[in-house]
Parts: sequence; structure tokens; C-alpha cells
Amino acid sequence: MVAKDVLAGGVRIVLVEPSHPGNIGAVARAMKTMGLSDLVLVNPELFPDPRARWRAMGGADILERAQVLGDLISAVEDCSLVIGASARHLSIPWPVLEPHQAAQEVLSEATRASGRTAIVFGRESRGLTTEELNLCQWHLRIPASPEYASLNVAMAVQVVCYELFVAAEAASRSDPDGEPEWDRPPATIKELEALYSHLEETLTELGFHDPDHPRQVMARLRRLASRIRPDTTEVGILRGVLSAVQRMIPGQGE
Amino acid sequence: MVAKDVLAGGVRIVLVEPSHPGNIGAVARAMKTMGLSDLVLVNPELFPDPRARWRAMGGADILERAQVLGDLISAVEDCSLVIGASARHLSIPWPVLEPHQAAQEVLSEATRASGRTAIVFGRESRGLTTEELNLCQWHLRIPASPEYASLNVAMAVQVVCYELFVAAEAASRSDPDGEPEWDRPPATIKELEALYSHLEETLTELGFHDPDHPRQVMARLRRLASRIRPDTTEVGILRGVLSAVQRMIPGQGE
Repeated sequence: MVAKDVLAGGVRIVLVEPSHPGNIGAVARAMKTMGLSDLVLVNPELFPDPRARWRAMGGADILERAQVLGDLISAVEDCSLVIGASARHLSIPWPVLEPHQAAQEVLSEATRASGRTAIVFGRESRGLTTEELNLCQWHLRIPASPEYASLNVAMAVQVVCYELFVAAEAASRSDPDGEPEWDRPPATIKELEALYSHLEETLTELGFHDPDHPRQVMARLRRLASRIRPDTTEVGILRGVLSAVQRMIPGQGE
Repeated sequence: MVAKDVLAGGVRIVLVEPSHPGNIGAVARAMKTMGLSDLVLVNPELFPDPRARWRAMGGADILERAQVLGDLISAVEDCSLVIGASARHLSIPWPVLEPHQAAQEVLSEATRASGRTAIVFGRESRGLTTEELNLCQWHLRIPASPEYASLNVAMAVQVVCYELFVAAEAASRSDPDGEPEWDRPPATIKELEALYSHLEETLTELGFHDPDHPRQVMARLRRLASRIRPDTTEVGILRGVLSAVQRMIPGQGE
């Protein structure tokens, strides 16, 4: 995919539970100025709303085509790369990108067959939950003053989309054809979630993992898989291994 | 000056005739997140205003300390570098910087003795006038989609301040002491404006320039001087030359 087409078709902005409709409009405008168009809203408090329309200005078409969904997983399940904006430090450190690095990852994802990225932004008041952040392969941190690091959500979207646009322009100059560089499509989030469920089930059957006392086993395994970034074929192989393990456990399988 | 101190003390954000108080508040917050603190408002339509206060969030202190002035020249006359945000093409092309280049110029200005930069943003509806842009040594263009390139003014400030913060962080790592690299202070805008007036007066007396039919002589000479970036001593020398020329013109001087 040519770099500039990536922005129009291969990158989705997801807002989780935005509370101010003005911010939704400002996000649509920010996206429009940088050539993005795919906006998904997860449980917005007020939408549609005239304040969103007013702040969107020239990005009104993005607002009109925005999908409204009921949970984050539905918003990202057809994506192969999910990056979550986070200002917080989690109890388990996650791989973190700054915006210009994230832009490189997004463009590189688009060179994989049918690779599609979602960049997820959280609530104005408290960002994304730990569970939502665990769904993301990468976390995104915008460099900011240690004294006051709280960017407005639309401002954060603008900075990230700006870095995407700058990176896409540079990539278009250096590689005008933009041929795919990977033979198999990357696994989608839906496939990865199925893999994690299968893994958790197997580990539970093995007595290695207790869902009632999870410690951080699954979070750590998710983080590990985030770094591997398997393609669909590889996910198939891994699940085949899990099924084989399950068949070996007494009292399971059959 | 150490790079991170540059942001707190050596960079001023100037808003010319902002019409929406919400935008003023959003600018204060954007500045605060990136460690800037010096905000000047030129003829704001409504200020102070509760909407500005509300949108400023943690940047409320910047709003409270913001200076309100009656014209752009007063807002920049103690600065040595003035950069004006512009999406327009002028009849005379001006040297243009993108945000990451502008950030380098601002930091490099701060390595000159007492160098101080103003970055000027125009009206929401129509930006800066040609006259205001002529006051700037550089113009600033934020890369944006050719389909819709109109960033909200606070978004533009956020992107520019973000690039400043990223550049200052990088500079702090590579040059922790940050010693001045130039022996004389750069000329301030006030000194430069006095030089231009003196030059125009001299050119008029010489019969080279007719203020009633200016063509673009003064704009072109301003643009040329923008590239030279004289220090105070050099401005003194240039004005000495102009005085010497004036004394040679029959009927003048004495």
C-alpha cells in the first residue's frame, strides 16, 4: 500500500468513552487535516451532538461516517496492530513507543499484507483501563512536561496524526511503490484473542494457571506475544500446538 | 541556556486577535503540557472568559500570567527571532520552516546571548495579515492534507510546542551545559524595525524608493535581512552606514 493511502485506509482512531462531544468533533477535524478518515467511538456519552458537529469543521464527513460500538474489542478485532495511548505506568512495564516511532510501526504494518492499525485513546478523565491497555501490543507515550503531562485527547490525536502524516510523506518520497514486504497477512486482534483464550484454557487445564488467582500470567504472555506479532499462519500453528497439548492432558480433550 | 530552560523562559507564544476564548484556554493547556509559559494575546475578542479558564485545565497559571497587548509589534519587540504560522502563499515567497526545523532554530537562537523567540499564530478565520507576516523572519508551515489543511489554532500550537519539547529533550541529552555560542546579543525586533525605518527613510531620500508607490522594495529588503539575522553590533554598523549615506545627500543631513 502506498504510504499516503495508509492514512486514509489503514489506520483507525478509536476513542473509548469520550465524555465531551466537543472533543469528538475536534478529533474528527484533527484527523481530516492529516488525511485520516476511519473513526470509531466506543460508548460515547453524547453522540451525535451539535457541539461535535461544530468543532469538526471540515472534518464533518469523518464524524458522519464514524462507527459507534459497544466495546473496545469490537472496535479493534479486524486490526492486526493495536497501539494504546497511555500516560500511566502499569504494574507490568509494556513496550512503549513515542509518536514518531509509532508512526514508523504503523507504516511498516501497512507493508504487511492487509495490515491495519488501530490507535486507541482513552477517557478524558482517566485514560484506558489496565484491561484495555493489555489488549494493545504497544503503548504510546507522548513526551510531555513532568510538571503537567495531561494533553487534551484531541490534542493527543492531533500530535499522533501529524507524526503519521510526516512519516507517510517521507516514506512516499523514499518508496513510491510501497510493495508489501511480508507474505502472510498479520493475525488480526480477533485471531490473537482466540489464541490467548485457547492458551489460558490450556494453561488452566495444565494446572499452571488458576483463573481465580491469575497473578499476572496472562498479562505477561500477552506482552510477550505483542513482541512476536505472529501472522495468521503462525497463529494457526500455535493453536495446533495448544490443541495437541490439551489432548495429552488426562480427563480433557476427547 | 540549558535546552529545557529555553522552553520556560526563551519562547513566547503570541495569539493575534483570537476570537474564541475556548481556544485561548486550549493554547494555555497545550503550552503547559510542553513546558512553555510565556503567552501574549494581541487584541483578544473576549478575555478573560470562563470558557478560557475551563479549557486551560492545568494551564490556568499561564492564562493568569498572559499579557494582553494592543498590537503585534509590542508583543515581539524584545524578541530576536519571530516565526509566524502561515498556511498561505504570499506574493513574495518567504523562508519557510516545518515544525521540527522551527524547533531547531528556536533552540539555536537560545544559544545566542539573550536570544528570545516569539512564535506568532493568527486569527481562527484568516490567520495573519501580509503585514504581520512581513514582521516575521521565518514562516512556519505545519505539514497537512492538501484536501483540508486547516488546523485549529490550539492544535497548531500543540504540534509546535510538542516539536519544541522533543527537540529540547534531545538537545539536553547531547549538550547538558548549553553554553552560548555567539558573542553579541542578536538584534531585537525593536532594533530591526528601527533599522528598516532608517533604511526606508534613506532610500526615499535617495530617490530609490517612493513610499506612495512602494512596489515590494521594503518587503524584499525585510526578507533579505531575515536571512542575515544581524546582532546588535551589526545593526549599529548598518545604521552608521545609512547615516553616512544620508549626510551625502544634498539638502539632507545638516
